[in-house]
Amino acid sequence: MKIKINENFLNLEENYLFSDINKRVNKYKEKNPSADIIRLGIGDVTLPLPKLIVDALKKASDEMLFKDTFRGYPPEYGYDFLKEAIKDYYKRNGYDLDIESIFVSDGAKSDLGNLVDILGDNNIYIPNPVYPVYLDSNIMSGRSIKFLKGNELNNFKPMPDGLDNNPKIIYLCSPNNPTGATYNYEELKIWVDYAYKTGSLIIYDAAYEAFIIDDSPRSIYAIPNAKYVAIEVSSLSKMAGFTGVRCGYTIIPLELKANDVSLNKLWKRRQATKFNGVSYPVQRAAEAALSIEGVKALKENLDKYKENARLLSDLFDRKHIWYSGGKNSPYIWLKCPNNMKSFEFFDYLLENANIVGTPGVGFGEFGEGYFRLTSFNTKENTLKAIERLEKYLK
Amino acid sequence: MKIKINENFLNLEENYLFSDINKRVNKYKEKNPSADIIRLGIGDVTLPLPKLIVDALKKASDEMLFKDTFRGYPPEYGYDFLKEAIKDYYKRNGYDLDIESIFVSDGAKSDLGNLVDILGDNNIYIPNPVYPVYLDSNIMSGRSIKFLKGNELNNFKPMPDGLDNNPKIIYLCSPNNPTGATYNYEELKIWVDYAYKTGSLIIYDAAYEAFIIDDSPRSIYAIPNAKYVAIEVSSLSKMAGFTGVRCGYTIIPLELKANDVSLNKLWKRRQATKFNGVSYPVQRAAEAALSIEGVKALKENLDKYKENARLLSDLFDRKHIWYSGGKNSPYIWLKCPNNMKSFEFFDYLLENANIVGTPGVGFGEFGEGYFRLTSFNTKENTLKAIERLEKYLK
Repeated sequence: MKIKINENFLNLEENYLFSDINKRVNKYKEKNPSADIIRLGIGDVTLPLPKLIVDALKKASDEMLFKDTFRGYPPEYGYDFLKEAIKDYYKRNGYDLDIESIFVSDGAKSDLGNLVDILGDNNIYIPNPVYPVYLDSNIMSGRSIKFLKGNELNNFKPMPDGLDNNPKIIYLCSPNNPTGATYNYEELKIWVDYAYKTGSLIIYDAAYEAFIIDDSPRSIYAIPNAKYVAIEVSSLSKMAGFTGVRCGYTIIPLELKANDVSLNKLWKRRQATKFNGVSYPVQRAAEAALSIEGVKALKENLDKYKENARLLSDLFDRKHIWYSGGKNSPYIWLKCPNNMKSFEFFDYLLENANIVGTPGVGFGEFGEGYFRLTSFNTKENTLKAIERLEKYLK
Repeated sequence: MKIKINENFLNLEENYLFSDINKRVNKYKEKNPSADIIRLGIGDVTLPLPKLIVDALKKASDEMLFKDTFRGYPPEYGYDFLKEAIKDYYKRNGYDLDIESIFVSDGAKSDLGNLVDILGDNNIYIPNPVYPVYLDSNIMSGRSIKFLKGNELNNFKPMPDGLDNNPKIIYLCSPNNPTGATYNYEELKIWVDYAYKTGSLIIYDAAYEAFIIDDSPRSIYAIPNAKYVAIEVSSLSKMAGFTGVRCGYTIIPLELKANDVSLNKLWKRRQATKFNGVSYPVQRAAEAALSIEGVKALKENLDKYKENARLLSDLFDRKHIWYSGGKNSPYIWLKCPNNMKSFEFFDYLLENANIVGTPGVGFGEFGEGYFRLTSFNTKENTLKAIERLEKYLK
């Protein structure tokens, strides 16, 4: 064909991180077939769903069997019952939402990727290291991108100091994937104030909010004026183990306006044109997950992940190895010992301790020299891994 | 905020069609509270799901209860079991697909809307009247759009005669929403040959393929060379009553290349960045629907809609009123009698026959003077409506 493609796609870098990891692991396994490899690189939940969520899925499925309870096209922005459940969940966590500001989605990634649709050609500021969707979706749109560098000095929580006063789009992820770093109230307030002062928009990824155990904000709307400057994207993936069920949501406050145009209205139009709503049984399952009983039932799973994260953090405390995360996050982001590079340390751990983690450089150039471990394996395996790490981390 | 929005959104026209219809109906009902209004404007399925589909949904939901069968993130392009089921479904209908060409989605609308992401600034040709997503998603991208005019002369099946030989993006919908017009093999071959000759891309919406009862192609891949020029988007919404369950798919052949860049590879990258796959229980339900047993169970529902369409067509045959569709489609697209305009006829039918349909002008300016009736109501109501139409259509 002679049609034109979107040439911005040609500027994307291929991401070979996980295929590269798999290659190295498979090669090692071939040579050492009896090795007992423990995977602490898992970025996905592993514990099954509580019964009350599966019951909700099945009950809604049964409704589809009968003419009187069958449901066709869902509302594009989500059923009111689920929007109310999201509003209530926020309310119980201390945040007030307008029901009209809530958009139900099939997951945070879709909305984080699709939000570029309603935005013009702005300067984009993205943390580094970070979840790659913000970067790639903006490269696809041909945007001019600058990085907010994470490092030990700022505890991988980049701040606006040094930025100019021009309006910009700022992506923030807190608790961060992969560093686990979590902005506290004062830090987040500095960002919101900066955005307010400069007329900037913050796109706030709160997908890991359920892991927060201290008094760090679980929503950017904890900060005064955030509703004038911030979109919040979140998900039931980690909070409720919904990575396979697929449900998330995006908050676009009615107050959020760019030169008098409502972003809420733009997103409504975008979704009505390019999205047809989330599966009815999935929305009922999400409603159950966000209920008081649902959150209580899910606490057991979250506590298991949190305990694994604490056990790993304790180890690095004892070893005096620098890390972020572990608290408020299923991720522990550590400095590779002896100034090893990310992939050097990967090979060292694989070959000596038979532990697989994720090289930090895979999340951006400023992740070089760092390494991500996760708490999604079993307690038994996590403890076994800790025993080995005690031995091989000197 | 001072950030720039996507100003193309300001060029979208507000669509008041269905709110306008509701206003007129409510006003009539207020004045005539005892009126027995029959809705033949329904654009959504109404019959419940067969048991084997609901059983598949519930069985997959139950798997999420146990650690050994729990599923996390699905593959972004769909589980192999569902891609195989789609391949088999096509195979049974006489078409060979490469498994790598299949992408599972949450519905045809998402993919039809999002395909603009991988395409550059091409000239866009869109039928009129037609489903509004093609037009609106291209306005959002700031594209230059021309219409392929439907009229009685071409039986609302616009052909490429008169088009220049420059490469372009051509949207086709067959069976068409709203006109029900369905390209036969020879007509579709003319389009594929034209695209092949001019280096153009056809985006082919086959969402209504299951309604085809004659030998018209149910897939554009029935035509030689189509795999070099066409993307096909389809859905289980109408075929399996999945408007509330949400599952569709898109076929991007490996042979489809624009200046040597594979569109399949571009879409893979787009979906891996901006989509996280379809809910696992939904994919199991779709697998069941596309199986031999599933298609057999669904035939009963489809036959009911098809019979209603036939009953309505017979009426317009008897009345010598021009229409398209009725065969191969749940839609009957008729010429308003006595040269009435679309909304004039709407009011006439509402006030005299207490029947609600959809004014054709709502699907594009070339729909003015036409009217859409659908077969999604019950047989009882359809027969009652026909009785009234017999009386009021002279």
